[in-house]
Amino acid sequence: MKGTFITVEGPDGAGKTTQLQLLSDVLKEKGYNVMTTREPGGTRVGNKIRSLILNPDFEEMKEMTEILLYAASRAQHVEELIRPALEAGTIVLCDRFVDASLAYQGYGLGHPIDLVRQINDSATGGLAPDRTYLFDLTVTDSKKRMMDRGALDRIEQRDDAFRARVYEGFQQIAVSDPERVQIVQANRSIEAIHQDLVEDVITYLEEKERFS
Amino acid sequence: MKGTFITVEGPDGAGKTTQLQLLSDVLKEKGYNVMTTREPGGTRVGNKIRSLILNPDFEEMKEMTEILLYAASRAQHVEELIRPALEAGTIVLCDRFVDASLAYQGYGLGHPIDLVRQINDSATGGLAPDRTYLFDLTVTDSKKRMMDRGALDRIEQRDDAFRARVYEGFQQIAVSDPERVQIVQANRSIEAIHQDLVEDVITYLEEKERFS
Repeated sequence: MKGTFITVEGPDGAGKTTQLQLLSDVLKEKGYNVMTTREPGGTRVGNKIRSLILNPDFEEMKEMTEILLYAASRAQHVEELIRPALEAGTIVLCDRFVDASLAYQGYGLGHPIDLVRQINDSATGGLAPDRTYLFDLTVTDSKKRMMDRGALDRIEQRDDAFRARVYEGFQQIAVSDPERVQIVQANRSIEAIHQDLVEDVITYLEEKERFS
Repeated sequence: MKGTFITVEGPDGAGKTTQLQLLSDVLKEKGYNVMTTREPGGTRVGNKIRSLILNPDFEEMKEMTEILLYAASRAQHVEELIRPALEAGTIVLCDRFVDASLAYQGYGLGHPIDLVRQINDSATGGLAPDRTYLFDLTVTDSKKRMMDRGALDRIEQRDDAFRARVYEGFQQIAVSDPERVQIVQANRSIEAIHQDLVEDVITYLEEKERFS
């Protein structure tokens, strides 16, 4: 594929969205075609699914339902937006992807990782990011930042033990795929994180161009 | 499981809903606990998903999205309604189940049957019907009956070649599982079909009681 697929992962409140926006601005200034998107959502169908997943009113929603809804949203996202953009040579910056499902639904909710991976492989047709930035923030810091933002949605209402399993899951993912997954210390200034990301992404893109 | 899980399958317009209602009435008269339900839907979450799948406005919906949304609705349906009812000893009559996904999304849309089956096994946790009545109606008759009903939804708007593949798919499913899947000639009077169904279900239930 001509384009480059970059994702950010990590807990809520870690600053992923802010950093993606800053990164997008810099890349555009340098003349790259950039598309920024997020999961769940990113498409009209996906936004409908997202509002259903996050609605605190649907407290009876079963975990397997949630896993399959995330996967459905992702299938739409990949086929409608991400894959066409990559084929056109665009840099796609995506706020969360399959790693989030593995961490939240696999490690967090305790469903078999292989099952969650299999469902998501069906959804993505096997598409994987070229590079993933894992925002590393302690459970305590993540929770504090979220509460500063106000009301918690259905996913955010889950407890600290859940958050700890998710944290552990993300670390496992990073260990299992160290070339793709770069750990970003998220408890630093916006500017410091931004500089690191820009440097790493530019290096990655230049190397890719050199060897293509 | 103490209960009995009975499904009806086949094309739109074959009379499945009418027959389930009539069958439910007879079984209730005979003193059985009966729950009638349908897919996609059956639950609050499932009805939300159903309205999204069938909305003709979402013409950009990708096929894999549809497959995963059906599976999500099914996961909710099984865990919230069907499994608890079966565990309580109820007869569950369900309008469509996994066979419909295999026929429409596997055979009809051309996705690998094993992939569709795998996604659905995740959704149902492996739950399968005890008995399935496949309403057998030609493509021509099915289409005629649907058009008599009025406007077609997004799924119904698909063409005759699609309908023919779905028909073939249902036949293959019946061949592969002849003990579970009973073929019902659907181009007969409501009363004639009803008599056949009642006779077969009662025989099945009595045999089940005798050997339990």
